[in-house]
Amino acid sequence: MLIERIARAVSPRLPQVPRRVRLSIGDDAAILRPSPGRELVLTCDAFLENAHFLADVHPPESVGYKALARATSDLAAMGARPLCFLLTLALPRKRTGRWLDAFLKGMSRAARRLRVALIGGDTALHSTVAIDITVLGEIRAGGAITRAGARPGDVVYVSGSLGRAQLGLELVLRGLATPGARRWRPLLQSHLYPEPRLALGVMLARRRLASAMIDTSDGLSIDLPNLCEASRVGAELWLDRLPAVRVPAEILKRGLDPVALALHGGEDYELLFTVPRRLASLVPTSCRGVSLTAIGRIVRGKGVSLVGPEGRARVLPRAGWDHFRNASRR
Amino acid sequence: MLIERIARAVSPRLPQVPRRVRLSIGDDAAILRPSPGRELVLTCDAFLENAHFLADVHPPESVGYKALARATSDLAAMGARPLCFLLTLALPRKRTGRWLDAFLKGMSRAARRLRVALIGGDTALHSTVAIDITVLGEIRAGGAITRAGARPGDVVYVSGSLGRAQLGLELVLRGLATPGARRWRPLLQSHLYPEPRLALGVMLARRRLASAMIDTSDGLSIDLPNLCEASRVGAELWLDRLPAVRVPAEILKRGLDPVALALHGGEDYELLFTVPRRLASLVPTSCRGVSLTAIGRIVRGKGVSLVGPEGRARVLPRAGWDHFRNASRR
Repeated sequence: MLIERIARAVSPRLPQVPRRVRLSIGDDAAILRPSPGRELVLTCDAFLENAHFLADVHPPESVGYKALARATSDLAAMGARPLCFLLTLALPRKRTGRWLDAFLKGMSRAARRLRVALIGGDTALHSTVAIDITVLGEIRAGGAITRAGARPGDVVYVSGSLGRAQLGLELVLRGLATPGARRWRPLLQSHLYPEPRLALGVMLARRRLASAMIDTSDGLSIDLPNLCEASRVGAELWLDRLPAVRVPAEILKRGLDPVALALHGGEDYELLFTVPRRLASLVPTSCRGVSLTAIGRIVRGKGVSLVGPEGRARVLPRAGWDHFRNASRR
Repeated sequence: MLIERIARAVSPRLPQVPRRVRLSIGDDAAILRPSPGRELVLTCDAFLENAHFLADVHPPESVGYKALARATSDLAAMGARPLCFLLTLALPRKRTGRWLDAFLKGMSRAARRLRVALIGGDTALHSTVAIDITVLGEIRAGGAITRAGARPGDVVYVSGSLGRAQLGLELVLRGLATPGARRWRPLLQSHLYPEPRLALGVMLARRRLASAMIDTSDGLSIDLPNLCEASRVGAELWLDRLPAVRVPAEILKRGLDPVALALHGGEDYELLFTVPRRLASLVPTSCRGVSLTAIGRIVRGKGVSLVGPEGRARVLPRAGWDHFRNASRR
């Protein structure tokens, strides 16, 4: 069975399965003994060939790494600490050899980095590569940060910089960079090997700083309105504060606009969170080397307005940007 | 978003989300508050077009129902009580209309019947229908029945009858019955709408009767050796005790052999379990109308031998039977 091959390939390189995992791969189901006083946080995330990645373009290491990283980012967005995951993997036969080995190497790297253990899964043959991952994490009971807690007056923060992953994707799709090429490697890193902001999420939850949180998976112009809608508030976004990706001059010429990338680019997996005004002075300027930037504020009403340096506001268009990614959205 | 449409369509018809589910669909992740003294049991199960079902042959109600039922059967096989599930659903655009409505109707029926609540999910567009379900259940700490506890001398039991689902599949694949036709409906029921033996699993776990358990998803000739391998024992299977499906005379002529169906047919989702000899008298003859039959015993050594009515033993070939189902196996 393929699942046993996966377990053999991935498990020795995985962090030790936590003691509360009482039964792992090989039986009908896995068994988990929850810690007292903790709640479980669960999410599932599909990563599909053609919809989310191109098997002939994206390196299998990246596909394996990113499938797990993006699923785990949803736990970061709750402030939870990830614990373990289940993997469903459907593959064409031609991907069961070297492609699969490289895929598992990437996934195993993500598992070590994110400290999550593989505890179960399912496999099948399929016409295209289809990956689905369920990640489980833990958090102090009542301590999760949902999307729904933002209040007028709260300050809006974002971690890191925005548009990096979309820049990488654009370079790949426009044939300006191949994933294997050295030259643009730093620009492709966020697209191929995103880093969920787990330590930041846990810190914000533990110190009870954030009133609402979401990860930037669809792009700021979709994720911020989603947070606002869940909280039944509006927001002002300060255009000149946006930590937009730095685009090299040579690539700027090709018509890639850093502000558009920052507003509409997806898959950065940064944390977008709101902090009550009275707590804003407690927010550090960075967390483990990742900058934290105030980019706006929550207001009464609906929708997100974009405030330029001249102080004039316009409505932020809720726009995705890339048809490749959008093919998977409705 | 499709997931919201799913939540709207399925949730009102679903059993009430248990109080320990603190956050359901609509945020980055779901939150579950575990019950004290209980362990969580988790399993994921892929149900893929062409590998596991044919979207143009199998009714969408059946696809939705069966996807959830087969995933939940893995919890029955541990003796756990199911609680909630996450659904990942990838669909071609042409399946997002009436097909999806019927699919959700079937899934909602299974959810009501199995008493599991939808708490999260993910959706995407895809070239074929790909379903992945993670089901969570609970069990008294230490109470789960694994595959690994069978000991020489234990009696092997199976619930219900064997080969029913394969008979239904054969009728459909050979064009002898269409899923909509009245005439053979009872014969197709197990293939289209399988019933996981949840009450039986819970009873066996609570009364601590079973030493090992597995559900018959791949067929007896694969599932029994799997249980034996996990327990490091062998087994004798009594051929004349096998509760094989009844095949109507009209269909017997077509070359469908009840014993072969019972030995090698998959997807019955019955429970196959072992009971220590001293407890065997406590096993009832049926549980909620489902018969329980002693079909063999556990022996020292390896492998499963088939003992005929004349007492002669031969090795049970570990054989799947149908290439349609086998396409998804390795």
